[in-house]
Amino acid sequence: MKQQANPIGELVLIEQIRRASRLRNASVVLGIGDDCAILRPPTGCELLITTDFSLEGRHFRRDRHPAESVGHRCLARGLSDLAAMGAKPLAAFLSLALPRDIVTTKSGQQWTRRFLHGLHALGDRYACPLAGGDTAESPSSIAGATGSGLPGIASPGLILADIILVGAAPTGKALRRSGARPGDLLYCTGSLGGAAAELATVLARKSVARIRSSGTAGANAAQHPHLLPEPRLATGAALLRRKLASAALDLSDGLSTDLMHLCVASGVHAVVDAAALPIHPLAAALGPAAALQAALHGGEDYELLFTAAASTRIPRSLAGVPITPIGRITRRRTGQPIMTLLHPDGTRQPLQPAGWEHFSSTAH
Amino acid sequence: MKQQANPIGELVLIEQIRRASRLRNASVVLGIGDDCAILRPPTGCELLITTDFSLEGRHFRRDRHPAESVGHRCLARGLSDLAAMGAKPLAAFLSLALPRDIVTTKSGQQWTRRFLHGLHALGDRYACPLAGGDTAESPSSIAGATGSGLPGIASPGLILADIILVGAAPTGKALRRSGARPGDLLYCTGSLGGAAAELATVLARKSVARIRSSGTAGANAAQHPHLLPEPRLATGAALLRRKLASAALDLSDGLSTDLMHLCVASGVHAVVDAAALPIHPLAAALGPAAALQAALHGGEDYELLFTAAASTRIPRSLAGVPITPIGRITRRRTGQPIMTLLHPDGTRQPLQPAGWEHFSSTAH
Repeated sequence: MKQQANPIGELVLIEQIRRASRLRNASVVLGIGDDCAILRPPTGCELLITTDFSLEGRHFRRDRHPAESVGHRCLARGLSDLAAMGAKPLAAFLSLALPRDIVTTKSGQQWTRRFLHGLHALGDRYACPLAGGDTAESPSSIAGATGSGLPGIASPGLILADIILVGAAPTGKALRRSGARPGDLLYCTGSLGGAAAELATVLARKSVARIRSSGTAGANAAQHPHLLPEPRLATGAALLRRKLASAALDLSDGLSTDLMHLCVASGVHAVVDAAALPIHPLAAALGPAAALQAALHGGEDYELLFTAAASTRIPRSLAGVPITPIGRITRRRTGQPIMTLLHPDGTRQPLQPAGWEHFSSTAH
Repeated sequence: MKQQANPIGELVLIEQIRRASRLRNASVVLGIGDDCAILRPPTGCELLITTDFSLEGRHFRRDRHPAESVGHRCLARGLSDLAAMGAKPLAAFLSLALPRDIVTTKSGQQWTRRFLHGLHALGDRYACPLAGGDTAESPSSIAGATGSGLPGIASPGLILADIILVGAAPTGKALRRSGARPGDLLYCTGSLGGAAAELATVLARKSVARIRSSGTAGANAAQHPHLLPEPRLATGAALLRRKLASAALDLSDGLSTDLMHLCVASGVHAVVDAAALPIHPLAAALGPAAALQAALHGGEDYELLFTAAASTRIPRSLAGVPITPIGRITRRRTGQPIMTLLHPDGTRQPLQPAGWEHFSSTAH
């Protein structure tokens, strides 16, 4: 639990992180380097805070995901939570545990540089600097040793990241999951199923995926819905500013699971119109049945799901992102399923949440 | 990377965390259950934010540390960072990854309950509720498989926690590391070396350590400086309110390493008077030489280290915690070591930082 200090070590990593983070945000009074960071939030605002793990072997694979994508997705997960509530990012904090070989080898240090580059490239576009965090050497566990009396085999440590986002929204105005009412219509931004479709091709490869950069962030996200998802911050902010949404959340776990969260929080029932779902081209290429599965349960699309009163005029696009009506909210009745899927032929079936949930009984 | 949902799973864990967190804080407008938590900080205040990992095998051992202690220390690490800057806690956020067996077995669920109990027992005393976070199944790594072509042995996943503390301090008044000036005196709170001394006995056992509860938090902390350290929130707040300190930080990595941080941030040199160091009884029992090592380099005492102008009258205790002058700040000269240790016989030697630093070359 204790070790001797060495000039090459944690301080070097912190310095690497600090140098990579040159962006300034007027709300950050004191950044990396003291016991805490100091933020001075804009007046008239509340603070929104969210934390999200990015764990090797759980949220990404080092042998499949490019380091830039791991950094990008790490930050995107948090930014998307802010987007869902209509908040503006102020600063991010990163707790990062790295295995020894990542810190001591040239290729490992290169991995860290590329990870931070991916994270900062996204943060820079949304004026979201890294203002603090923690570093540690990730623990290596011992396999096969427990109780056997035999020496175990040490597993290499894993890359463990936890990203914390702090944002601001006008007091009392943040979009919540709990505001949906019977009669509201259900909308989503962008298209669905692309992340699941790209993930399948990333995992099917035998090597690290390549990012084909098209220049603009929007084009990159369209081409790489899994590797480079774009958090819908401007769209979320527009929903808040124009008072369009009665409830909102982001599609991180999959439409079926996230819609259930919205229905439970609002105490309502939802009908999803399968024919109306905007399918990402990568998902559409899988054929109609697989495309529907990817759109309903795929997860990690990081689009926004929101409801609005039927009388509210919702534009076809907001901040350059298409908006599609995909269903409606009705009263919840005892014994009724929480969600219903309406098929193109008019048949209805209960919609079960089947997106990402940790600790479920089915293995990965 | 994807799995089917199951009613027993992440939602159950989140519900367990939510139920355990009944405390309210007026600054928390919206707690666990939406995409973000919403905080409304007190007027006239800045926000202070810190994150700290508690990783199994790095910061604690499941076969040595009682679960209550792991939860207590997890939160204490963050609270101590707030104390160092004189801030008042508003809310904590917990990212918690658990191995499958912890979630699915009765004894594992019991571990989680006790962990949360230890965390909340400390949080309740400082009006610091858990307002959000993230949960995940911790990844298991594969040992011996890479490149060998042979099937590897799966290591069990580890318990991975990241605690985030949000606090408030009057605008522009937070204590920083960078304010020490030549001529200032150096002080610490409480006593030193106790955590290292107790840690040695905890690791020397062959089973989980027992907590002997004496009733009051202060008595528990005195008896268990490693298992139940007490963050010096009231003392830090008094230093800020009474404008006593020119610089401050908390003793998490060890006096020698933390004092170096203070000297580097302030651009000064420090002389530590070995004879003046307040030694914890558990460290004193090790004999003079080992006691001095524990006090200088032991780490995790979570006392405060601060400087004050020589003209400032510092009371012998603050908020019930003894204050001891342990040295002084002088001008830094080129080629001079950053810190000097003054021995009782008047000899001086350079003081090297030898407390906790991650990624150093010496193994644990």
